[in-house]
Amino acid sequence: MAPPSPRVVVEVDLKKKPWQQSQPLHNRWHPEIPSVAEVKVGEFFRVEMIDAMGGVVKDNDSAVDIKNMDLTTTHHLSGPIRVVDEDGVAAKPGDLLAVEICNLGPLPGDEWGFTASFDRENGGGFLTDHFPCATKAIWYFEGIYAYSPQIPGVRFPGLTHPGVIGTAPSKELLSIWNERERKLEESGPESLKLCEVVHQRPLAVLPTTKGCLLGNIEKGTPEWERIANEAARTIPGRENGGNCDIKNLSRGSKIYLPVFVEGANLSTGDMHFSQGDGEISFCGAIEMSGFLELKCVIIRNGMQEYLTPMGPTPLHVNPIFEIGPVEPRFSEWLVFEGISVDESGRQHYLDATVAYKRAVLNAIDYLFKFGYSKEQVYLLLSCCPCEGRISGIVDSPNAVATLAIPTAIFDQDIRPKTRKVPTGPRIVRKPDVLKCTYDGKLPITKNPSSST
Amino acid sequence: MAPPSPRVVVEVDLKKKPWQQSQPLHNRWHPEIPSVAEVKVGEFFRVEMIDAMGGVVKDNDSAVDIKNMDLTTTHHLSGPIRVVDEDGVAAKPGDLLAVEICNLGPLPGDEWGFTASFDRENGGGFLTDHFPCATKAIWYFEGIYAYSPQIPGVRFPGLTHPGVIGTAPSKELLSIWNERERKLEESGPESLKLCEVVHQRPLAVLPTTKGCLLGNIEKGTPEWERIANEAARTIPGRENGGNCDIKNLSRGSKIYLPVFVEGANLSTGDMHFSQGDGEISFCGAIEMSGFLELKCVIIRNGMQEYLTPMGPTPLHVNPIFEIGPVEPRFSEWLVFEGISVDESGRQHYLDATVAYKRAVLNAIDYLFKFGYSKEQVYLLLSCCPCEGRISGIVDSPNAVATLAIPTAIFDQDIRPKTRKVPTGPRIVRKPDVLKCTYDGKLPITKNPSSST
Amino acid sequence: MAPPSPRVVVEVDLKKKPWQQSQPLHNRWHPEIPSVAEVKVGEFFRVEMIDAMGGVVKDNDSAVDIKNMDLTTTHHLSGPIRVVDEDGVAAKPGDLLAVEICNLGPLPGDEWGFTASFDRENGGGFLTDHFPCATKAIWYFEGIYAYSPQIPGVRFPGLTHPGVIGTAPSKELLSIWNERERKLEESGPESLKLCEVVHQRPLAVLPTTKGCLLGNIEKGTPEWERIANEAARTIPGRENGGNCDIKNLSRGSKIYLPVFVEGANLSTGDMHFSQGDGEISFCGAIEMSGFLELKCVIIRNGMQEYLTPMGPTPLHVNPIFEIGPVEPRFSEWLVFEGISVDESGRQHYLDATVAYKRAVLNAIDYLFKFGYSKEQVYLLLSCCPCEGRISGIVDSPNAVATLAIPTAIFDQDIRPKTRKVPTGPRIVRKPDVLKCTYDGKLPITKNPSSST
Amino acid sequence: MAPPSPRVVVEVDLKKKPWQQSQPLHNRWHPEIPSVAEVKVGEFFRVEMIDAMGGVVKDNDSAVDIKNMDLTTTHHLSGPIRVVDEDGVAAKPGDLLAVEICNLGPLPGDEWGFTASFDRENGGGFLTDHFPCATKAIWYFEGIYAYSPQIPGVRFPGLTHPGVIGTAPSKELLSIWNERERKLEESGPESLKLCEVVHQRPLAVLPTTKGCLLGNIEKGTPEWERIANEAARTIPGRENGGNCDIKNLSRGSKIYLPVFVEGANLSTGDMHFSQGDGEISFCGAIEMSGFLELKCVIIRNGMQEYLTPMGPTPLHVNPIFEIGPVEPRFSEWLVFEGISVDESGRQHYLDATVAYKRAVLNAIDYLFKFGYSKEQVYLLLSCCPCEGRISGIVDSPNAVATLAIPTAIFDQDIRPKTRKVPTGPRIVRKPDVLKCTYDGKLPITKNPSSST
Repeated sequence: MAPPSPRVVVEVDLKKKPWQQSQPLHNRWHPEIPSVAEVKVGEFFRVEMIDAMGGVVKDNDSAVDIKNMDLTTTHHLSGPIRVVDEDGVAAKPGDLLAVEICNLGPLPGDEWGFTASFDRENGGGFLTDHFPCATKAIWYFEGIYAYSPQIPGVRFPGLTHPGVIGTAPSKELLSIWNERERKLEESGPESLKLCEVVHQRPLAVLPTTKGCLLGNIEKGTPEWERIANEAARTIPGRENGGNCDIKNLSRGSKIYLPVFVEGANLSTGDMHFSQGDGEISFCGAIEMSGFLELKCVIIRNGMQEYLTPMGPTPLHVNPIFEIGPVEPRFSEWLVFEGISVDESGRQHYLDATVAYKRAVLNAIDYLFKFGYSKEQVYLLLSCCPCEGRISGIVDSPNAVATLAIPTAIFDQDIRPKTRKVPTGPRIVRKPDVLKCTYDGKLPITKNPSSST
Repeated sequence: MAPPSPRVVVEVDLKKKPWQQSQPLHNRWHPEIPSVAEVKVGEFFRVEMIDAMGGVVKDNDSAVDIKNMDLTTTHHLSGPIRVVDEDGVAAKPGDLLAVEICNLGPLPGDEWGFTASFDRENGGGFLTDHFPCATKAIWYFEGIYAYSPQIPGVRFPGLTHPGVIGTAPSKELLSIWNERERKLEESGPESLKLCEVVHQRPLAVLPTTKGCLLGNIEKGTPEWERIANEAARTIPGRENGGNCDIKNLSRGSKIYLPVFVEGANLSTGDMHFSQGDGEISFCGAIEMSGFLELKCVIIRNGMQEYLTPMGPTPLHVNPIFEIGPVEPRFSEWLVFEGISVDESGRQHYLDATVAYKRAVLNAIDYLFKFGYSKEQVYLLLSCCPCEGRISGIVDSPNAVATLAIPTAIFDQDIRPKTRKVPTGPRIVRKPDVLKCTYDGKLPITKNPSSST
Repeated sequence: MAPPSPRVVVEVDLKKKPWQQSQPLHNRWHPEIPSVAEVKVGEFFRVEMIDAMGGVVKDNDSAVDIKNMDLTTTHHLSGPIRVVDEDGVAAKPGDLLAVEICNLGPLPGDEWGFTASFDRENGGGFLTDHFPCATKAIWYFEGIYAYSPQIPGVRFPGLTHPGVIGTAPSKELLSIWNERERKLEESGPESLKLCEVVHQRPLAVLPTTKGCLLGNIEKGTPEWERIANEAARTIPGRENGGNCDIKNLSRGSKIYLPVFVEGANLSTGDMHFSQGDGEISFCGAIEMSGFLELKCVIIRNGMQEYLTPMGPTPLHVNPIFEIGPVEPRFSEWLVFEGISVDESGRQHYLDATVAYKRAVLNAIDYLFKFGYSKEQVYLLLSCCPCEGRISGIVDSPNAVATLAIPTAIFDQDIRPKTRKVPTGPRIVRKPDVLKCTYDGKLPITKNPSSST
Repeated sequence: MAPPSPRVVVEVDLKKKPWQQSQPLHNRWHPEIPSVAEVKVGEFFRVEMIDAMGGVVKDNDSAVDIKNMDLTTTHHLSGPIRVVDEDGVAAKPGDLLAVEICNLGPLPGDEWGFTASFDRENGGGFLTDHFPCATKAIWYFEGIYAYSPQIPGVRFPGLTHPGVIGTAPSKELLSIWNERERKLEESGPESLKLCEVVHQRPLAVLPTTKGCLLGNIEKGTPEWERIANEAARTIPGRENGGNCDIKNLSRGSKIYLPVFVEGANLSTGDMHFSQGDGEISFCGAIEMSGFLELKCVIIRNGMQEYLTPMGPTPLHVNPIFEIGPVEPRFSEWLVFEGISVDESGRQHYLDATVAYKRAVLNAIDYLFKFGYSKEQVYLLLSCCPCEGRISGIVDSPNAVATLAIPTAIFDQDIRPKTRKVPTGPRIVRKPDVLKCTYDGKLPITKNPSSST
């Protein structure tokens, strides 16, 4: 007889604040954040997580919480979890940690989530120059399905996954991160041609003691101060995995993470009920609290066996992933294309980011014709199971990016037909997303040809 | 009784040169290239095409033809085909032309193709700074399957599609193209931050009389000279569709193309037996001659009904595509990730192109461990049914791109395992790709950490 | 703000006996079993269920519980649930009840199940003449995956579903059932040619007071006696749905059930973590306790609108089902064929049952060569996601049935190869299934040509 | 350089009669029919085939050719093809012949097919007691799609496959077939309980010189007479494969056929553009001429290695099949259920044939409500990519069979909805199938409850 259930190694209490949890959470990457639990390879275990924003965003009828969001506190991660082999010997730097996702989902009693876009002056998003306001949509879950009162007429099964899963960086790797990102931030937007097209700011999110949570390290101590000043923010994905936001990392997937510190120190969080490729509105998945049920294997010396560094040090690696047969499959897709010409008509050179921005803008304007507000579509394409592809990356000067949307998620046929659409007057989908005013002064990108 | 077969509206003779075909080919976009055939909406018709390179690349044991390729002649397109409605009234500017791909394939008796990377000083490719040599692999088709003597141990079903399908541009649209691309070319690489990472050149491919084919317009006439100097090259995808290289545009797809000139003037070519997302080695699909069997519908006034311009004029639009249920489906995938940090360790800002480059480099180094040469993998990932995704585009400063490879195309299990790989000595997959020397002097990008 | 969680309308306590539950269970179909809960259309609700056998089968190392199983007590169903519309008006006879399965799974803390074959003299199974012994395998769940210590080397994701879901029959429908099944039972095996090939007994399972549970109707009262003598057993699927054992009725499915009594009186049970088409070993799915999360819609007058009776009365109908995009998909299958010739070589006439029996026998003998005992394969094919198809039903005298097995569930490549299999000596997969002796005297079907 | 094209080993001329082909066809199984071609293992080759009926059925507006069909002439097969290994040594009895289907399709210039039901007194079909008339529908192919003027409103991609593929039987196997089928035929319908429900006749199709074609054996010679009197008819699938009618044997499949005579003597024919599981109307696929492109491998001694005989001799085996990833996939299905109760309300015992008959009848009556005639649906379900499953085969007394229909093949939404269907008056789909009168006197099965 085997223990039939997963062992709960990290438990959360949604009524408590992040720093009040019995196994305190963390929102930074640092080698010295102590592990809060230990698992053996082959063991089937469960990790619970609060949502990335730490419970600040509420199921109410206002987007003010989004507008005022303190982004220095994201993402709230559970862990670190120390991994040891059958003999109790910990994972070692240079090993690979294979993590299988056996199951996942929302926490019972908390079956809802939110999708939002931040204010342009507080985080923004991929299209923040078009949509500078903070907006929010609430999603309710009916088992595997999600629907939103603010985006009527769509309902879809979630391809649920953790947005953040990663191992702790070594001291050396941490320095590499901090150095290269600080350099970018210091170089300023004018040095970056892409910045004329992508208006999300800041350029990089650097360490700060503000909002910092370091698990069992007591706040205010000199140790805490030191680590908080060094610890990497969790916004970008990096060599340790982290916020990779790969939407297909769902039930049945495996993640091969490089190990940089003894014990691997696995942390997870930022559960997404569903996300579209790109997570375009930034707070763009259906964000929720949730659980993961996992199994780990240590591949001894696996970094050398399987990964090849790409960069100046042996630490410049990336994880590998394995996607299995267990996910919703759609058989019909409508595909929007973008090329690397920006909204002003300016030609860029093989720029997939610009091309994808245009593909998304095309999709938004298209679905607007079917009764949705543009903000509704912006949030929808952030969180529904749409696919963002780099279709062509060599045909100078145009990269071609495509955005494929499964047609089955809509309650109407959204394909072009040989008659006017919609037949009769455009029926607006009400209510709209929750929305704040934009009080900043940055210019909005206007598409002179666009419908309003 | 219905006519059971498609009507062949463009026929090619593979023994003749491109300019000798009875319905002469063209390799430029221009509103004044006269149509060579006419079809009615609803009619089921067939178009034959020679390969993009015009038959210059041979099924032999040398890559010299690739090294010496004259790129001013690509792509050799069949058409233009004028489309009229049931009453004989031509498609009009402002309409949408819906083209359904009912069937396609190689031309009988010519069941082979090639994948190649150009010399760094003659076109290059996405990784030309890593792989500056001209290389070539020949693929033979066994029905839906392709295999290459130069890349042993892989065999896969083709997701066959036309690389190029588009309508003729109007005079006004053509001017927009020429102007914006000339501007880019003139601004020079130093103005483009991305150019420090993407080394393919030239930046844009501008009109030239060299190599120009204009269908029924006689070469050397003043008219020919004028048009040849104006006509857009076919390398990049643009507002008219063109070289969009969307690998899923296979049997059962539909393409909604904007109409810019009377009759729509549909042209197609650049048949791909198979292609990976991105077509990374540039001559990267399995290039072949082939046929398309099509049906057209005119959606009157469809540009206004369905498309929203994105840019300074009503012509700044992109086509829409519909993907149907008929394609090979794989259930297991191995996924490689890249972030927007380049090979030197330098941080870029939300740059999907850099992230995808890194994902591809990671995949190449990984598969190298299984016995393939890096050139073999470079060509393989160009043409096998792999998926390139923009997974995260908002987590500053890192874009996350992923490359997913179906594991079933290999004759060995390529997943990481808890033992050394390969078991025993690395068994090199021989023979290797056909390869020329690189005689240029441009510096090669070296990854100091990479295996050799 | 919406209530985020499903309302639990039937709760079970696994520590209590079936008749001790606060909402007492039932194991018969009868119009007079009172409803234990009520739901509104559109409401998202949850039903919990104990396993079909009522908790008698244990996670231990013996099959004695299977050998001694009292089949008069199966299936233990939760409900009946009365369904009303928005105005509180109950579903009426003649309506259709559309039930959507939004989610389902094992009960937390009880993540295990069993697959078994009954003793030939106590229920048997499809191949009971070949495998007369009671056997049992325990399965443990790791999230969506199941594995069994008794069937090593396989692991698969569950396509979880309720084996039994149905509405209460009317008095008239109940009489039809009892009459036609009694007639069959009385006619005896000798009247049934098929009985020479299918040896499961009894021919029909008729009403009996033994083992009878009738929910809130108190045992021993005259009312209980009367109803227990009339109430239909739940073994076969019938006009009301019931034990239809359709393995794809998983997340995202819809079931359109005819309504025969006021309120519809929906009952469910017999949760299967996974099942193969046919559920061949009878206790053949992975049987477990579990929960369903459901939503109902009443289609008023839907029986007349959508169903056509097939038989002497308007009650001779069958439910309709809708299967959605959310299930594991496998891309490679090994397929075994059977024709309607029995093990003695005797020719039958277009008999799909005989053909399927032969296909299953072929598959068992095939997999036996890969190290499994035949009993292991018999249980495995009962519960893994294999597909049983009627491929040809018109080519006299042979029906052709096929059994397709997804190859990815095995830890070895089970496809035929141009070398001996297994390479080297046959490695037996140990331990074997739990097994009792067969003490009866019925003859065993011997295949003289079979390996042992 | 490899030979790029398949070698055509059997060619047909559609303007010639079956017996006039340069490589004469055969329509019987017999070890002494001489091979007409030879292939080596690994060789990529092409076989052309006329349609099963030998070109008798025409693309016209009458079903008279179906009514008068001489069934003694079906199926017209191409081959036999002798298979040898690299050293020229022929396949031997006891080997397995692995045949890979690399490609297939209609013959160019003959892109049409037909679906038909025979007259009740001339072959019948699965539902001949309900539909005794000869009916016919013509299908035209648009690439991978088929549509029929006689069944408007449906269009679907073909899952094209050979209905018949098999090896030649040995003398001993042939005797087994003839003996067991003769015994069945002689026993008469009254001995077969199933015959009260399945009314197709004759019970078995025995050897006859009438209509017999034996390839290169000259008609009228004593040898011909002898062989024609012994040779098995091709209607049923048997140990050698033959008419197995497995609809998923399409591009990318493999068939492992037992070898009974030296050289294997592979024959193929009965090409189906598409077929539903069961091929219920008997002439029920979309019958056409066509080609196969194949590769063979000999697995020496493979019968013993991989197959286990099931019956009195080592010859009682069945082929194995492998289905690959290349087929149309649908994500939404509507499923009809049948139980083993017949149209008169009579209970049968675990009879999958009866259950499937009822599932099909349910589906026909359902789709009738959407404007189709019942004959249209009968033919449609014979040939569209629907799946017939044995869902439950152990729940005495009811077998449960299901018929799943992909909803995407219809031009209307056929799912049940909470409103009347169709909205407004039932719009009849015209024209109807081509239909002859039934002039026989056998009673028709009436469903008293059915709509008309």
